[in-house]
Amino acid sequence: MTTDNPQAPAGTYASTTGAFVRDTNYIADRITAAAPAGAATSQDDGTFHWPVEANRYRLVAARACPWAHRAVIVRRLMGLESVISLALAGPTHDQRSWTFDLDPDAVDPVLGITRLQEAYFNRFPDYPRGITVPALVEESSRKVVSNDFPSLVRDLITQWGKFQRPGAPDLWPSEHVEEMERLNKWIFTEINNGVYRCGFAGSQDAYDDGYDRLWSALDQIEERLSTRRYLVGDHITETDIRLFVTLIRFDAVYYSHFKTARNKITEMPNLWGYLRELFQLPGFGDTTDFTEIKQHYFLVHRDINPTGIIPGGPDLSGLATAHGREIFGGSPFAPGTTLPGAMPPGEELKNPEPFQNQAPHLQP
Amino acid sequence: MTTDNPQAPAGTYASTTGAFVRDTNYIADRITAAAPAGAATSQDDGTFHWPVEANRYRLVAARACPWAHRAVIVRRLMGLESVISLALAGPTHDQRSWTFDLDPDAVDPVLGITRLQEAYFNRFPDYPRGITVPALVEESSRKVVSNDFPSLVRDLITQWGKFQRPGAPDLWPSEHVEEMERLNKWIFTEINNGVYRCGFAGSQDAYDDGYDRLWSALDQIEERLSTRRYLVGDHITETDIRLFVTLIRFDAVYYSHFKTARNKITEMPNLWGYLRELFQLPGFGDTTDFTEIKQHYFLVHRDINPTGIIPGGPDLSGLATAHGREIFGGSPFAPGTTLPGAMPPGEELKNPEPFQNQAPHLQP
Repeated sequence: MTTDNPQAPAGTYASTTGAFVRDTNYIADRITAAAPAGAATSQDDGTFHWPVEANRYRLVAARACPWAHRAVIVRRLMGLESVISLALAGPTHDQRSWTFDLDPDAVDPVLGITRLQEAYFNRFPDYPRGITVPALVEESSRKVVSNDFPSLVRDLITQWGKFQRPGAPDLWPSEHVEEMERLNKWIFTEINNGVYRCGFAGSQDAYDDGYDRLWSALDQIEERLSTRRYLVGDHITETDIRLFVTLIRFDAVYYSHFKTARNKITEMPNLWGYLRELFQLPGFGDTTDFTEIKQHYFLVHRDINPTGIIPGGPDLSGLATAHGREIFGGSPFAPGTTLPGAMPPGEELKNPEPFQNQAPHLQP
Repeated sequence: MTTDNPQAPAGTYASTTGAFVRDTNYIADRITAAAPAGAATSQDDGTFHWPVEANRYRLVAARACPWAHRAVIVRRLMGLESVISLALAGPTHDQRSWTFDLDPDAVDPVLGITRLQEAYFNRFPDYPRGITVPALVEESSRKVVSNDFPSLVRDLITQWGKFQRPGAPDLWPSEHVEEMERLNKWIFTEINNGVYRCGFAGSQDAYDDGYDRLWSALDQIEERLSTRRYLVGDHITETDIRLFVTLIRFDAVYYSHFKTARNKITEMPNLWGYLRELFQLPGFGDTTDFTEIKQHYFLVHRDINPTGIIPGGPDLSGLATAHGREIFGGSPFAPGTTLPGAMPPGEELKNPEPFQNQAPHLQP
């Protein structure tokens, strides 16, 4: 989440060897089905467990941010939109915080704050780390409950069962947990974070290492997807969502801005088919705002794009074309699972691409 | 040639509207077949005409520079290698001049100078403009004769007949002059210079205009090449060489560095086939050094690439694959024309890509 951390510009993350190092300390409270109603209960490790409760928490995200995008996708797939409200910060942030500059008067209408930083300070007045999205905020106290994106997302999948929609998918199937955990960790270090390692390298050697690591990983995924439709099992899992958020930003941003430029995803036949299939499902393409994504990266990282000029292109219209992945068998979700319905009013993309309005092509 | 102008960093070329403006004033002497032997003769317009003479002039180029690349290609196609010697400056230059840092002791072995600037000052001690390549330098006096790349290249084609090799192509066929002149002008403003207009735009509006203009032009060329093998007539002309030097740098540099990122050339079927055919002919691919090209742009333009990190990739190996352009009829050169022979010893690329050594694929 370094790119999304206004208090620690990218450059400060270069280690003494020039390699990019990500801050991985977060507010790691959990929202669990086992937690008693009422106040959060303290745990032996110093964190708190909060109860699953409708209309108590607000998810603060930004369309631009890949780490927040995971939570937005999962919230929609699980049908939690009417239970956990959504705040969307604008694509750019200042040196102190993500801000609600897309909202009327630049104030989040539920939390009544202009900068996410306030919710962090409400929780910890001397909060020393970056102000990151996604963050779950208790609406009444306006305090951050969690910004630990892996557990935050996992809890939406596994702990919120009593509020999930009928027909919600099982994104964390018990029979594949071991494989998903292994792949998740590898995808995080090699791909999700791997693109940042290229973009924020402080030396040519560090960049070259990052580029080689990233492409070694992408070549392995390309190979894996040559014989199977999804990363694990026969259906979409959390692991696919973790990969999607990086892949969908790759050609539009990482290829040029982070210099991950060996191939575009469009040039990797299996990754490209895989990406198109996911993009065309509700929850994925309909939560992807390329305008805000490009604004974020190209405007915020002045250390690598000093002019702040946002490139035109790339031509992304191929995302709406037939993906051909049916040949591998399987199906997006298991029998008995249904697709999410229409996007809740007010959550539609602000900047849909023309091909994102071609509804017939975007249904599975 | 702005990128190749160490005395005027790119940023200084933005006009008051933020648009990029190219300096087009050059030392415009000519070397002509009609000029008498001996000293140059002054003309009414203040320039001089110099005589065609073997071993009198040295072409100073750099593998990196597209404007110099034209002259290098033409010199080789016309078989002038043993008549006009070649100096190759390194891919980067300092604030004052291109330098001969690839040569032993960083001294050009013929001119005995370390920086091209000296040859400009030998001609005009107070020379106020950028020190650009290509430049033709008189070997004995070490003075620049011309750095006016359009006339410099044209004269190699049209004035040096008595020294050109048997079987040299006619790159400026009289029956197509009008069309070539029209296209040359348009390709210069919209494409050769169009990529720089994107890369050095001083504002988002200026960039957006530049991007639209560039892609309007590339779409027109893509359409033109959908029904014909070359830009003009049935064979390669100077006009194709002018387009080639930009196209061959497009995916490797301009796409990301200059933000010309709608499509890679590999995604434009006709441009891609056309580029591959030219690349695979002697004179084109064997004078293209992608390492030096990337070093030049990514190291020199710190104003748009402050880290100076050179990207890995892109995967260019497709340049050696079958181009399929035979279906349009025509042939690279007219009947009676032969291909240039082997590269003169000492002029081989310093950094050939693996696919550039696959000789069987690189013959027409």
